Amino acid sequence: MNFNMKEAIEVLERTPQSLEYFLSGLSNSWLQSNEGEGTWNVSEVIEHLIDGEKNNWMPRLEMIMKEGEKKPFPPFDRFSHLNNRHDGSIENKLLEFKAIRSQNITKLQRMIEPDLHLELTGSHPAFGKVHLRELLSTWVVHDLTHIAQISRVMAERYRADVGPWQEYLGILKNDVNRKEERLIYT
Amino acid sequence: MNFNMKEAIEVLERTPQSLEYFLSGLSNSWLQSNEGEGTWNVSEVIEHLIDGEKNNWMPRLEMIMKEGEKKPFPPFDRFSHLNNRHDGSIENKLLEFKAIRSQNITKLQRMIEPDLHLELTGSHPAFGKVHLRELLSTWVVHDLTHIAQISRVMAERYRADVGPWQEYLGILKNDVNRKEERLIYT
Repeated sequence: MNFNMKEAIEVLERTPQSLEYFLSGLSNSWLQSNEGEGTWNVSEVIEHLIDGEKNNWMPRLEMIMKEGEKKPFPPFDRFSHLNNRHDGSIENKLLEFKAIRSQNITKLQRMIEPDLHLELTGSHPAFGKVHLRELLSTWVVHDLTHIAQISRVMAERYRADVGPWQEYLGILKNDVNRKEERLIYT
Repeated sequence: MNFNMKEAIEVLERTPQSLEYFLSGLSNSWLQSNEGEGTWNVSEVIEHLIDGEKNNWMPRLEMIMKEGEKKPFPPFDRFSHLNNRHDGSIENKLLEFKAIRSQNITKLQRMIEPDLHLELTGSHPAFGKVHLRELLSTWVVHDLTHIAQISRVMAERYRADVGPWQEYLGILKNDVNRKEERLIYT
Protein backbone atom coordinates (compact mmCIF):
# COMPACT_ATOMS: atom_id res chain seq x y z
CA MET A 1 0.00 0.00 0.00
CA ASN A 2 1.32 3.43 -0.92
CA PHE A 3 -1.44 5.71 0.31
CA ASN A 4 -0.24 8.63 2.36
CA MET A 5 -2.50 11.51 3.33
CA LYS A 6 0.03 14.26 2.68
CA GLU A 7 0.95 12.88 -0.75
CA ALA A 8 -2.69 12.36 -1.72
CA ILE A 9 -3.46 15.99 -0.90
CA GLU A 10 -0.47 17.07 -3.02
CA VAL A 11 -2.28 15.71 -6.08
CA LEU A 12 -5.78 16.82 -5.08
CA GLU A 13 -4.65 20.40 -4.59
CA ARG A 14 -2.73 20.56 -7.89
CA THR A 15 -5.37 19.20 -10.27
CA PRO A 16 -7.63 22.28 -10.59
CA GLN A 17 -4.79 24.74 -11.01
CA SER A 18 -3.03 22.60 -13.61
CA LEU A 19 -6.23 22.15 -15.59
CA GLU A 20 -6.84 25.88 -15.36
CA TYR A 21 -3.44 26.53 -16.96
CA PHE A 22 -4.03 23.90 -19.58
CA LEU A 23 -7.58 24.75 -20.61
CA SER A 24 -8.21 28.46 -19.99
CA GLY A 25 -8.29 30.43 -23.21
CA LEU A 26 -8.26 27.34 -25.46
CA SER A 27 -10.26 27.57 -28.67
CA ASN A 28 -13.74 26.12 -28.53
CA SER A 29 -12.76 23.52 -31.09
CA TRP A 30 -10.54 21.89 -28.43
CA LEU A 31 -13.16 22.22 -25.70
CA GLN A 32 -16.19 21.03 -27.64
CA SER A 33 -14.85 18.05 -29.56
CA ASN A 34 -15.39 14.57 -28.18
CA GLU A 35 -14.59 10.97 -29.09
CA GLY A 36 -17.91 10.28 -30.79
CA GLU A 37 -21.55 9.69 -29.86
CA GLY A 38 -22.10 9.38 -26.12
CA THR A 39 -18.59 10.49 -25.09
CA TRP A 40 -17.70 13.62 -23.15
CA ASN A 41 -15.96 16.72 -24.36
CA VAL A 42 -13.37 18.51 -22.22
CA SER A 43 -15.92 20.93 -20.84
CA GLU A 44 -18.19 18.08 -19.72
CA VAL A 45 -15.29 16.39 -17.95
CA ILE A 46 -14.78 19.55 -15.85
CA GLU A 47 -18.52 19.59 -15.05
CA HIS A 48 -18.23 15.97 -13.93
CA LEU A 49 -15.29 16.86 -11.67
CA ILE A 50 -17.34 19.67 -10.10
CA ASP A 51 -20.24 17.27 -9.51
CA GLY A 52 -17.89 14.84 -7.81
CA GLU A 53 -16.75 17.55 -5.41
CA LYS A 54 -20.34 18.38 -4.56
CA ASN A 55 -22.03 15.00 -4.52
CA ASN A 56 -19.53 12.21 -4.27
CA TRP A 57 -16.29 12.43 -2.30
CA MET A 58 -17.15 14.56 0.70
CA PRO A 59 -20.68 13.26 1.25
CA ARG A 60 -19.33 9.70 1.24
CA LEU A 61 -16.47 10.60 3.51
CA GLU A 62 -18.86 12.23 5.95
CA MET A 63 -21.11 9.20 5.79
CA ILE A 64 -18.24 6.89 6.74
CA MET A 65 -17.38 9.18 9.66
CA LYS A 66 -20.96 9.45 10.91
CA GLU A 67 -22.65 6.21 9.93
CA GLY A 68 -19.92 3.67 9.33
CA GLU A 69 -21.40 0.64 7.59
CA LYS A 70 -24.91 1.24 8.90
CA LYS A 71 -26.22 2.93 5.75
CA PRO A 72 -24.96 2.42 2.18
CA PHE A 73 -23.76 5.53 0.33
CA PRO A 74 -26.44 7.14 -1.78
CA PRO A 75 -25.60 6.33 -5.41
CA PHE A 76 -23.66 9.02 -7.28
CA ASP A 77 -25.22 9.86 -10.63
CA ARG A 78 -22.22 10.25 -12.87
CA PHE A 79 -24.38 11.64 -15.66
CA SER A 80 -26.04 14.36 -13.58
CA HIS A 81 -23.91 17.09 -15.14
CA LEU A 82 -25.36 16.13 -18.52
CA ASN A 83 -28.91 16.62 -17.29
CA ASN A 84 -28.30 19.81 -15.34
CA ARG A 85 -26.73 21.87 -18.06
CA HIS A 86 -23.86 23.96 -16.79
CA ASP A 87 -23.72 27.15 -18.75
CA GLY A 88 -20.83 29.51 -18.71
CA SER A 89 -17.31 29.60 -19.99
CA ILE A 90 -14.66 26.99 -19.31
CA GLU A 91 -12.87 29.66 -17.25
CA ASN A 92 -15.88 29.93 -14.92
CA LYS A 93 -16.15 26.17 -14.62
CA LEU A 94 -12.46 25.90 -13.78
CA LEU A 95 -12.80 28.62 -11.14
CA GLU A 96 -15.75 26.78 -9.62
CA PHE A 97 -13.80 23.52 -9.58
CA LYS A 98 -10.81 25.24 -7.97
CA ALA A 99 -12.93 26.91 -5.28
CA ILE A 100 -14.91 23.85 -4.27
CA ARG A 101 -11.85 21.59 -4.31
CA SER A 102 -10.01 24.02 -2.08
CA GLN A 103 -12.91 24.09 0.39
CA ASN A 104 -13.08 20.30 0.37
CA ILE A 105 -9.37 19.93 1.09
CA THR A 106 -9.69 22.30 4.03
CA LYS A 107 -12.63 20.27 5.37
CA LEU A 108 -10.77 17.03 4.79
CA GLN A 109 -7.75 18.21 6.73
CA ARG A 110 -9.93 19.33 9.65
CA MET A 111 -11.99 16.18 9.66
CA ILE A 112 -9.51 13.37 9.13
CA GLU A 113 -6.80 12.33 11.53
CA PRO A 114 -4.87 9.72 9.48
CA ASP A 115 -3.78 7.65 12.48
CA LEU A 116 -7.35 7.37 13.70
CA HIS A 117 -9.62 7.38 10.66
CA LEU A 118 -8.07 5.78 7.57
CA GLU A 119 -9.26 2.30 8.44
CA LEU A 120 -12.84 3.34 9.18
CA THR A 121 -15.36 1.57 6.97
CA GLY A 122 -18.52 2.41 5.10
CA SER A 123 -20.90 0.55 2.83
CA HIS A 124 -20.74 1.04 -0.93
CA PRO A 125 -23.99 0.27 -2.78
CA ALA A 126 -22.22 -2.16 -5.16
CA PHE A 127 -19.04 -3.26 -3.33
CA GLY A 128 -20.18 -3.49 0.26
CA LYS A 129 -17.49 -2.74 2.84
CA VAL A 130 -14.94 -0.11 1.82
CA HIS A 131 -12.29 1.71 3.84
CA LEU A 132 -11.97 5.46 4.11
CA ARG A 133 -8.39 5.05 2.83
CA GLU A 134 -9.71 3.41 -0.34
CA LEU A 135 -12.18 6.25 -0.92
CA LEU A 136 -9.39 8.83 -0.61
CA SER A 137 -7.08 6.84 -2.90
CA THR A 138 -9.89 6.61 -5.45
CA TRP A 139 -10.43 10.37 -5.31
CA VAL A 140 -6.77 10.85 -6.34
CA VAL A 141 -6.85 8.23 -9.09
CA HIS A 142 -10.16 9.66 -10.34
CA ASP A 143 -8.41 13.04 -10.89
CA LEU A 144 -5.61 11.30 -12.78
CA THR A 145 -8.10 9.32 -14.88
CA HIS A 146 -9.82 12.48 -16.03
CA ILE A 147 -6.58 14.35 -16.75
CA ALA A 148 -5.61 11.42 -18.98
CA GLN A 149 -9.08 11.44 -20.54
CA ILE A 150 -8.84 15.17 -21.36
CA SER A 151 -5.50 14.58 -23.10
CA ARG A 152 -6.92 11.66 -25.04
CA VAL A 153 -10.08 13.52 -26.12
CA MET A 154 -7.95 16.39 -27.40
CA ALA A 155 -5.51 14.04 -29.18
CA GLU A 156 -8.45 12.44 -30.99
CA ARG A 157 -9.03 15.69 -32.93
CA TYR A 158 -5.71 15.19 -34.73
CA ARG A 159 -6.08 11.47 -35.40
CA ALA A 160 -6.10 11.97 -39.16
CA ASP A 161 -3.76 14.97 -39.09
CA VAL A 162 -0.73 13.11 -37.75
CA GLY A 163 -0.64 10.99 -40.92
CA PRO A 164 1.75 8.03 -40.71
CA TRP A 165 2.80 8.89 -37.14
CA GLN A 166 -0.54 7.52 -35.96
CA GLU A 167 0.95 4.07 -35.51
CA TYR A 168 3.55 5.36 -33.04
CA LEU A 169 1.19 7.36 -30.86
CA GLY A 170 -0.22 5.09 -28.18
CA ILE A 171 -2.87 7.59 -27.15
CA LEU A 172 -4.62 7.18 -30.50
CA LYS A 173 -4.77 3.39 -30.14
CA ASN A 174 -6.54 3.36 -26.90
CA ASP A 175 -9.92 2.19 -28.15
CA VAL A 176 -10.71 -0.03 -25.22
CA ASN A 177 -10.29 2.77 -22.74
CA ARG A 178 -12.29 5.22 -24.80
CA LYS A 179 -15.31 2.95 -24.77
CA GLU A 180 -14.98 2.08 -21.11
CA GLU A 181 -14.57 5.63 -19.85
CA ARG A 182 -18.32 6.19 -19.89
CA LEU A 183 -18.76 3.21 -17.62
CA ILE A 184 -16.58 4.58 -14.87
CA TYR A 185 -18.72 4.73 -11.80
CA THR A 186 -17.01 6.09 -8.74
CA MET B 1 -8.38 17.42 -41.16
CA ASN B 2 -8.52 19.63 -38.09
CA PHE B 3 -4.98 21.01 -37.92
CA ASN B 4 -4.79 24.73 -37.45
CA MET B 5 -1.56 26.52 -36.63
CA LYS B 6 -3.03 28.87 -34.03
CA GLU B 7 -4.83 26.06 -32.20
CA ALA B 8 -1.76 23.80 -32.30
CA ILE B 9 0.32 26.53 -30.69
CA GLU B 10 -2.33 26.97 -28.00
CA VAL B 11 -1.56 23.45 -26.80
CA LEU B 12 2.21 23.60 -27.31
CA GLU B 13 2.49 26.75 -25.23
CA ARG B 14 0.31 25.43 -22.39
CA THR B 15 1.97 22.05 -21.80
CA PRO B 16 5.10 23.15 -19.90
CA GLN B 17 3.27 25.57 -17.63
CA SER B 18 0.54 23.05 -16.80
CA LEU B 19 3.08 20.36 -16.02
CA GLU B 20 4.99 22.83 -13.89
CA TYR B 21 1.88 23.44 -11.78
CA PHE B 22 1.12 19.77 -11.58
CA LEU B 23 4.58 18.45 -10.74
CA SER B 24 6.55 21.15 -8.91
CA GLY B 25 6.89 20.41 -5.23
CA LEU B 26 5.48 16.87 -5.50
CA SER B 27 6.99 14.26 -3.20
CA ASN B 28 9.71 12.13 -4.71
CA SER B 29 7.54 9.06 -4.30
CA TRP B 30 5.27 10.43 -7.06
CA LEU B 31 8.17 11.49 -9.26
CA GLN B 32 10.28 8.36 -8.96
CA SER B 33 7.74 5.58 -9.23
CA ASN B 34 7.18 3.89 -12.58
CA GLU B 35 5.04 1.13 -14.07
CA GLY B 36 7.63 -1.61 -13.69
CA GLU B 37 10.91 -2.69 -15.26
CA GLY B 38 11.82 -0.71 -18.36
CA THR B 39 9.11 1.94 -17.96
CA TRP B 40 9.64 5.64 -17.31
CA ASN B 41 8.97 7.60 -14.17
CA VAL B 42 7.52 11.11 -14.30
CA SER B 43 10.91 12.73 -14.12
CA GLU B 44 12.15 10.70 -17.10
CA VAL B 45 9.11 11.72 -19.14
CA ILE B 46 10.04 15.39 -18.63
CA GLU B 47 13.63 14.61 -19.71
CA HIS B 48 12.23 12.96 -22.84
CA LEU B 49 10.12 16.05 -23.58
CA ILE B 50 13.23 18.25 -23.24
CA ASP B 51 15.14 15.95 -25.59
CA GLY B 52 12.35 16.21 -28.14
CA GLU B 53 12.59 20.02 -28.06
CA LYS B 54 16.32 19.85 -28.66
CA ASN B 55 16.68 16.97 -31.07
CA ASN B 56 13.42 16.10 -32.71
CA TRP B 57 10.77 18.66 -33.62
CA MET B 58 12.73 21.73 -34.64
CA PRO B 59 15.60 19.94 -36.37
CA ARG B 60 13.11 17.98 -38.46
CA LEU B 61 11.08 21.08 -39.22
CA GLU B 62 14.22 22.89 -40.34
CA MET B 63 15.19 19.93 -42.44
CA ILE B 64 11.85 19.97 -44.26
CA MET B 65 12.26 23.72 -44.88
CA LYS B 66 15.85 23.42 -46.13
CA GLU B 67 16.14 19.98 -47.69
CA GLY B 68 12.63 18.84 -48.50
CA GLU B 69 12.68 15.14 -49.31
CA LYS B 70 16.31 15.12 -50.39
CA LYS B 71 17.70 13.77 -47.11
CA PRO B 72 15.86 11.62 -44.56
CA PHE B 73 15.60 12.98 -41.02
CA PRO B 74 18.35 11.76 -38.74
CA PRO B 75 16.77 9.19 -36.40
CA PHE B 76 15.69 10.54 -33.02
CA ASP B 77 16.96 8.41 -30.16
CA ARG B 78 14.00 8.33 -27.82
CA PHE B 79 16.11 6.72 -25.11
CA SER B 80 18.90 9.29 -25.16
CA HIS B 81 17.70 10.93 -21.95
CA LEU B 82 18.23 7.60 -20.20
CA ASN B 83 21.85 7.45 -21.28
CA ASN B 84 22.69 11.09 -20.63
CA ARG B 85 21.60 11.30 -17.04
CA HIS B 86 19.87 14.58 -16.28
CA ASP B 87 20.59 15.54 -12.73
CA GLY B 88 18.77 18.23 -10.89
CA SER B 89 15.37 18.71 -9.40
CA ILE B 90 12.09 18.31 -11.22
CA GLU B 91 11.66 22.08 -10.84
CA ASN B 92 14.85 22.69 -12.82
CA LYS B 93 13.82 20.22 -15.50
CA LEU B 94 10.43 21.88 -15.82
CA LEU B 95 12.04 25.30 -16.11
CA GLU B 96 14.33 23.97 -18.83
CA PHE B 97 11.38 22.46 -20.70
CA LYS B 98 9.43 25.72 -20.41
CA ALA B 99 12.34 27.83 -21.65
CA ILE B 100 13.24 25.69 -24.64
CA ARG B 101 9.60 25.20 -25.66
CA SER B 102 9.06 28.93 -25.54
CA GLN B 103 12.11 29.54 -27.75
CA ASN B 104 10.93 26.88 -30.18
CA ILE B 105 7.46 28.40 -30.46
CA THR B 106 8.99 31.79 -31.22
CA LYS B 107 11.19 30.22 -33.91
CA LEU B 108 8.25 28.29 -35.31
CA GLN B 109 6.13 31.41 -35.61
CA ARG B 110 8.93 33.26 -37.39
CA MET B 111 9.75 30.39 -39.69
CA ILE B 112 6.39 29.00 -40.76
CA GLU B 113 3.83 30.80 -42.86
CA PRO B 114 0.86 28.40 -42.74
CA ASP B 115 -0.48 29.30 -46.18
CA LEU B 116 2.91 28.63 -47.75
CA HIS B 117 4.58 25.89 -45.76
CA LEU B 118 2.16 23.37 -44.24
CA GLU B 119 2.15 21.12 -47.29
CA LEU B 120 5.93 21.04 -47.66
CA THR B 121 7.34 17.52 -47.46
CA GLY B 122 10.30 15.76 -45.92
CA SER B 123 11.53 12.21 -45.71
CA HIS B 124 11.04 10.20 -42.53
CA PRO B 125 13.51 7.32 -42.05
CA ALA B 126 10.70 4.79 -41.58
CA PHE B 127 7.61 6.32 -43.24
CA GLY B 128 9.07 8.07 -46.26
CA LYS B 129 7.22 11.18 -47.37
CA VAL B 130 5.65 13.23 -44.57
CA HIS B 131 4.11 16.69 -44.60
CA LEU B 132 5.18 19.54 -42.36
CA ARG B 133 1.55 19.73 -41.18
CA GLU B 134 1.76 16.11 -40.01
CA LEU B 135 4.97 16.78 -38.08
CA LEU B 136 3.34 19.74 -36.29
CA SER B 137 0.19 17.73 -35.51
CA THR B 138 2.36 14.95 -34.11
CA TRP B 139 4.21 17.41 -31.88
CA VAL B 140 0.86 18.37 -30.32
CA VAL B 141 -0.38 14.79 -29.93
CA HIS B 142 3.02 13.81 -28.50
CA ASP B 143 2.52 16.38 -25.70
CA LEU B 144 -0.94 14.97 -25.01
CA THR B 145 0.38 11.39 -25.01
CA HIS B 146 2.93 12.21 -22.36
CA ILE B 147 0.49 14.17 -20.17
CA ALA B 148 -1.75 11.10 -20.24
CA GLN B 149 1.27 8.88 -19.51
CA ILE B 150 2.25 10.98 -16.47
CA SER B 151 -1.28 10.64 -15.09
CA ARG B 152 -1.26 6.90 -15.69
CA VAL B 153 2.16 6.37 -14.11
CA MET B 154 1.05 8.26 -11.01
CA ALA B 155 -2.27 6.38 -10.84
CA GLU B 156 -0.37 3.09 -10.90
CA ARG B 157 1.07 3.84 -7.43
CA TYR B 158 -2.42 3.54 -5.94
CA ARG B 159 -3.48 0.44 -7.87
CA ALA B 160 -3.79 -1.63 -4.70
CA ASP B 161 -4.89 1.27 -2.52
CA VAL B 162 -8.17 1.94 -4.31
CA GLY B 163 -9.42 -1.50 -3.27
CA PRO B 164 -12.65 -2.55 -4.98
CA TRP B 165 -12.86 0.71 -6.99
CA GLN B 166 -10.10 -0.66 -9.21
CA GLU B 167 -12.64 -2.19 -11.57
CA TYR B 168 -14.27 1.20 -12.25
CA LEU B 169 -11.07 3.13 -12.93
CA GLY B 170 -10.24 2.82 -16.62
CA ILE B 171 -6.75 4.22 -16.15
CA LEU B 172 -5.74 1.16 -14.13
CA LYS B 173 -6.90 -1.21 -16.85
CA ASN B 174 -4.85 0.24 -19.54
CA ASP B 175 -2.32 -2.57 -19.83
CA VAL B 176 -2.02 -2.45 -23.57
CA ASN B 177 -1.06 1.19 -23.57
CA ARG B 178 1.41 0.81 -20.74
CA LYS B 179 3.37 -1.78 -22.66
CA GLU B 180 3.24 0.13 -25.91
CA GLU B 181 4.33 3.48 -24.51
CA ARG B 182 7.97 2.49 -24.62
CA LEU B 183 7.63 1.76 -28.31
CA ILE B 184 6.53 5.25 -29.22
CA TYR B 185 8.98 6.52 -31.74
CA THR B 186 8.33 9.99 -33.00
